[in-house]
Amino acid sequence: MIAPAPSSEKNEVVTKVVKDLRLEDKTALLSGRDFWSTAEVNGVPSMVLTDGPHGVRRQAGEADNLGIHGSLPATCFPPGTALGSSWDQELAEEVGQALGREARHLGVNVLLGPAVNIKRSPLCGRNFEYFSEDPLISGVLGAAWVRGVQSQGVGTSVKHFAANNQETDRMRISSDVDERTLREIYFPAFERVVQESKPTAVMCSYNRINGTYASENTWLLTDVLRKEWGFTGAVLSDWGAVSNRVAALKAGLDLEMPGSDGTTTAEIISAVKDGSLDTSFVDASAIRVAALQQLTAFEGGDTSAFDVDAHHALARRAAGGSIVLLRNENGTLPLQPGTRVAVLGEFAEKPRYQGGGSSHINPTRIDIPLEELRKNLGEDHVHYAPGYGVTGTEASSLLLEEATDLARRADVSIVFVGLDEKEESEGFDRTNLDLPADHVALIEAVAAVSNRTVVVLSNGGVVTLEPWHDDVDAILEGWALGQAGGGALADVLTGRTNPSGRLAETIPFRLNDTASFINFPGEAGHVRYGEGALVGYRYHETVDVPARYPFGHGLSYTTFTYSDLSVDVPGTDHATVHLTVTNAGDRAGADVVQIYVAAPKGPVRKPLRELRAFQKVTLEPGESRTLAFELDRRAFAHYDITDSRWAVTPGEYSIELGRSSHDIAARSAISLEGDAGRTAPLSLTSTVEEWFTHPVAGPLLIEGMTASMTEEQREAAEAMQDGLKMVYSMPMDQFAKFPGVTIPQEALEQLIHATREAPVG
Amino acid sequence: MIAPAPSSEKNEVVTKVVKDLRLEDKTALLSGRDFWSTAEVNGVPSMVLTDGPHGVRRQAGEADNLGIHGSLPATCFPPGTALGSSWDQELAEEVGQALGREARHLGVNVLLGPAVNIKRSPLCGRNFEYFSEDPLISGVLGAAWVRGVQSQGVGTSVKHFAANNQETDRMRISSDVDERTLREIYFPAFERVVQESKPTAVMCSYNRINGTYASENTWLLTDVLRKEWGFTGAVLSDWGAVSNRVAALKAGLDLEMPGSDGTTTAEIISAVKDGSLDTSFVDASAIRVAALQQLTAFEGGDTSAFDVDAHHALARRAAGGSIVLLRNENGTLPLQPGTRVAVLGEFAEKPRYQGGGSSHINPTRIDIPLEELRKNLGEDHVHYAPGYGVTGTEASSLLLEEATDLARRADVSIVFVGLDEKEESEGFDRTNLDLPADHVALIEAVAAVSNRTVVVLSNGGVVTLEPWHDDVDAILEGWALGQAGGGALADVLTGRTNPSGRLAETIPFRLNDTASFINFPGEAGHVRYGEGALVGYRYHETVDVPARYPFGHGLSYTTFTYSDLSVDVPGTDHATVHLTVTNAGDRAGADVVQIYVAAPKGPVRKPLRELRAFQKVTLEPGESRTLAFELDRRAFAHYDITDSRWAVTPGEYSIELGRSSHDIAARSAISLEGDAGRTAPLSLTSTVEEWFTHPVAGPLLIEGMTASMTEEQREAAEAMQDGLKMVYSMPMDQFAKFPGVTIPQEALEQLIHATREAPVG
Repeated sequence: MIAPAPSSEKNEVVTKVVKDLRLEDKTALLSGRDFWSTAEVNGVPSMVLTDGPHGVRRQAGEADNLGIHGSLPATCFPPGTALGSSWDQELAEEVGQALGREARHLGVNVLLGPAVNIKRSPLCGRNFEYFSEDPLISGVLGAAWVRGVQSQGVGTSVKHFAANNQETDRMRISSDVDERTLREIYFPAFERVVQESKPTAVMCSYNRINGTYASENTWLLTDVLRKEWGFTGAVLSDWGAVSNRVAALKAGLDLEMPGSDGTTTAEIISAVKDGSLDTSFVDASAIRVAALQQLTAFEGGDTSAFDVDAHHALARRAAGGSIVLLRNENGTLPLQPGTRVAVLGEFAEKPRYQGGGSSHINPTRIDIPLEELRKNLGEDHVHYAPGYGVTGTEASSLLLEEATDLARRADVSIVFVGLDEKEESEGFDRTNLDLPADHVALIEAVAAVSNRTVVVLSNGGVVTLEPWHDDVDAILEGWALGQAGGGALADVLTGRTNPSGRLAETIPFRLNDTASFINFPGEAGHVRYGEGALVGYRYHETVDVPARYPFGHGLSYTTFTYSDLSVDVPGTDHATVHLTVTNAGDRAGADVVQIYVAAPKGPVRKPLRELRAFQKVTLEPGESRTLAFELDRRAFAHYDITDSRWAVTPGEYSIELGRSSHDIAARSAISLEGDAGRTAPLSLTSTVEEWFTHPVAGPLLIEGMTASMTEEQREAAEAMQDGLKMVYSMPMDQFAKFPGVTIPQEALEQLIHATREAPVG
Repeated sequence: MIAPAPSSEKNEVVTKVVKDLRLEDKTALLSGRDFWSTAEVNGVPSMVLTDGPHGVRRQAGEADNLGIHGSLPATCFPPGTALGSSWDQELAEEVGQALGREARHLGVNVLLGPAVNIKRSPLCGRNFEYFSEDPLISGVLGAAWVRGVQSQGVGTSVKHFAANNQETDRMRISSDVDERTLREIYFPAFERVVQESKPTAVMCSYNRINGTYASENTWLLTDVLRKEWGFTGAVLSDWGAVSNRVAALKAGLDLEMPGSDGTTTAEIISAVKDGSLDTSFVDASAIRVAALQQLTAFEGGDTSAFDVDAHHALARRAAGGSIVLLRNENGTLPLQPGTRVAVLGEFAEKPRYQGGGSSHINPTRIDIPLEELRKNLGEDHVHYAPGYGVTGTEASSLLLEEATDLARRADVSIVFVGLDEKEESEGFDRTNLDLPADHVALIEAVAAVSNRTVVVLSNGGVVTLEPWHDDVDAILEGWALGQAGGGALADVLTGRTNPSGRLAETIPFRLNDTASFINFPGEAGHVRYGEGALVGYRYHETVDVPARYPFGHGLSYTTFTYSDLSVDVPGTDHATVHLTVTNAGDRAGADVVQIYVAAPKGPVRKPLRELRAFQKVTLEPGESRTLAFELDRRAFAHYDITDSRWAVTPGEYSIELGRSSHDIAARSAISLEGDAGRTAPLSLTSTVEEWFTHPVAGPLLIEGMTASMTEEQREAAEAMQDGLKMVYSMPMDQFAKFPGVTIPQEALEQLIHATREAPVG
């Protein structure tokens, strides 16, 4: 297991080597030599960094940067959208280990992943690479992935930091988002990965945040990432994300990728020479780049071949654990032996299993769903028609006719539909949630005539299930499952694998129902994060907007029951949750136990509930297991922008055990002390209400104001109490100057002093 | 009719008087002498400024600033919420004239109104003072009101400028709102009032805008208000809205109200003396204050009594034109002669007709709905029970029983319900849209037993009509109708007045369905205007969120039909709409013709449709009238923040004639040239897509890049086209530095030069 030292400056060997370099050599370390590797300078070897995250994309030809020719073969594991739905950190770690082995084999020092950006909108073109709309899932799975990869001595670079939640205008757009939302939604996955798994690197994103490029954002890259979170690795740029190299260096951006054929190197040297850039910035970043190389170096090119079969088997298992059984009426699934099946839809033959862009993998092999079903059910029991895939009305009609003919004669029809790979890619966003019209037509035609209809979806981002949802018996959300998805789907359809995936993102009824609908993807260079922290299920639950399937939803072929939920508060603002989960059915299976926290009303608006812990647990039929979850202070806290700290509202919290974010099976209330003792100190700009209701200053103020009054004035003042409500929100210093009020500033200052002397209530 | 001169500096008399003053005297003009008047200095008399907006609140006792004792009697006209629902600018002007007369009688120089803030949330405690959720209605009625008041030689002060859309923490809260939204939603009413009616003053609001107090906001008070809109009057502060007097003066705040007993005067003098404040600021503001006094002065206290009866009659007519008939099933209304009526609910006896806070009027008299109904229908036909108004379960049950007993025996039951005055006030916001539980209980109990049930609502802000809506036959939205509301309600119920009000704000099914629900009223000193321009019906229509009653809705006792809609485009980006409206029923009545514009897809997200013109027209039975509406460029434009200008997207616009924002009776499409010829000039930071698709630079760039390529490279480049989509959003200067791409900056600059030389396509 590799990880950056607590402070890379303390890496004495590297520090010495770098300090002895000439300025030109140090500076050469700060930009790529070419697209995929860093410069080799006197004493510091080159290293290779390449995509990630669900497979190793190693371009063979040096000049072939944009991937005209296929990359070297590598296992295409389930992309983030699928792996996120597994809610399985052990699985994510295993996949990481396998990726690490492949990276070593392919001579890659740093694998560019994990991608832990939040799915703010279902339209984001890169959602297929991301885990979830929830920061906890993203952080837990990202941290596990890093542990896995780095256990093989290969570096990782968690990306894309930060608030990079769309592809539209991604190189210039400013994500206009308030700090509380950043701290609670867009940062925590990065924070967790950094603090739990010590990734060797962090990749900054293309976009601006509140007007400042991520690559030039000192607050982001230095204050938050390094100083607050203690990150000691290297920060590298997304490919082409550097606008001003010198500004980026000052902000904490160590390594610019790819290189610029010396242009930006010259800019740095020039800035040092004209005194506008202190060499300490160059030294610190060069040391971090050299340390990254040293950490991720492996001797003599460890190109021992990886076990292609074993990795494919892992990819199949991972895919199997990621499929979400959304609907299963009438016990339609699993298919019983002897069932006559019509397999319909071209995706059964030409599966969709990954997305476009930098993460595109040249797979070692591909499982074809149709073939896998035939292997499982027997050739004679499986009949196939493509159903769509041609253009022209007449040809389409013929395809539909052929499909419905098969559907009529089968016990069960399985319709493979979804989104084409070219519709989902890095570089652009989708504009709607619709399946292609000919896919919808196939579902509807088949459902109209079939005895039983099963829909198998293959899509990177969420699609709507309307208007056909109620017409079909079962739905498998198959996501983009990687190269072994075909086998995994056959496993689930036939019951070899009991489905255990849970939605890591909400499936809405329609795009309009999503939190970011009115603001995505922004305009005129700005995207307003108008929904704040109410992303995904946080929006649906808080605003009470129904979803087709809520976050956390997923069925199984067995049944899980919960009992004995209890919550202790062993220390201040800290809770331990105990519960027992039982497999009450007659089949082994895995459940995902989801713990949500609902906060009391407080000074800030909170989501109705938030996922704060989860665990995937596999149980034999009849087996029970008692689980314990620790909820630390952060599980109850919000980020208080006034005090720049995590604050806990005093009061009653509901600990909720959910089958989804919407379906709460059991709940238990606890009372937390929180920041009860912490009253904001009174100041001249505190409101009239804050002054008059202050336990110390209030009575003194009233005493002082009424002391010199006549009896009549006193009565009038009392009658005035109702009118006072109107000025309650006025800052005291302004109220004090009102004619007829006139409280001298010195008097107020004396009262402030008095509140400091008095014991806190 | 008074109005500030084109430039107040050109008011030579005033200028000379002020310039001759000592610094201390000039400065004394810049803050109030006391709560309601300005200082009298050598040559410049004092003037009185007081609330507004729907009546004159003149406190008699000088020291009684917070209104312990009632103000002098004045007519309480319908508050803004009602007058807004009239959609009747002539009526607003008449009311303004009457207010001007009363102000003169009461010795008031400047009446503090109109209040044209947008109803961003139905919860805002001061919504009862505001006209609408729509800026056009607010602006048109505000401008008419100013014309009316100023026609009497009394000044006005349009308020509260700007983005003051809530009471919660109003003295400190920062309205965080983007410029396009300010320009399109929160500014236009002010802009229209300033430009059409030349109010003598503008009152700045308490809140901050994007962090800067309105009172210290140079951009707001000087750049936008004076330089862009040409305002030449005085800017005064809301009472207590000045935080830093010197900063406010520099920003353009002329008159601080109330005074501060000399504190801030000393601050200004001190700043002049230490050189941190140029005297030109003092001079300019002192001249504006003196000019305001001069404009609004009337000789020797023109205290001729106003005609109390005539003003009450006007208040009744205005209220009658403001009532909105929301629902009228089974021809329940108007009540037929001889109908036996049960009048239920204490509001029939103790009407709610205004709101709390600075606008609170001591009325000259009050119409009691119950009495007015008795007068109309005859004592014998009207029976009354209070229905609610006591505390205690048992007493409540008795009241309900009494009410239902009456309801059972009546032909029609009229239930008076609403919100108590103390629930709606300046100074705080509501937290829900609910009617009091005992009011709802009364409606439900009555509806369960009554032959016909009519609900009469009295409320300043919107209330939900759930869950009882479907159980009643008719609903009158009576708002806060002013002192003559009781008579006006009787007029409408009995058919003496044919209702003609239209909703100037959406009635949602529930609070959660409103655009600002997730962000109102903000936290930690900030309120995020996350919905942008999608306020009110703009949100409901664009996101397709159903409302109980849409903006613009309102029934009549007659029927209006539309015909012959036609739209001409006589000039560039300008349209003329013609249509004929016919009273197809057998009763005279007034219709509000509403013209909406729906824009084509463009570079920014636009509301589905926006109100761009309206006219209230009264028609005899069978009468037709042909109307013409002019739609100028602004009716089609959005504010382009990149270019700081109003821009028109080229394409097809739909001109929609609506019975409401949701019910479009007819539409006609027109094609506008817009800014078609205006292509953003190419720059180094233009995207790869912008470069490659530019009509001039694109081909040259490709030619240059491929010129030196081998045949194989050229083929590879062509194959690369798909991959290029991924880098389409990259700024060209970053793409140009990529290894393997390397386009010299000089080459790009030459191309930019070439685009400037080339003729624009």
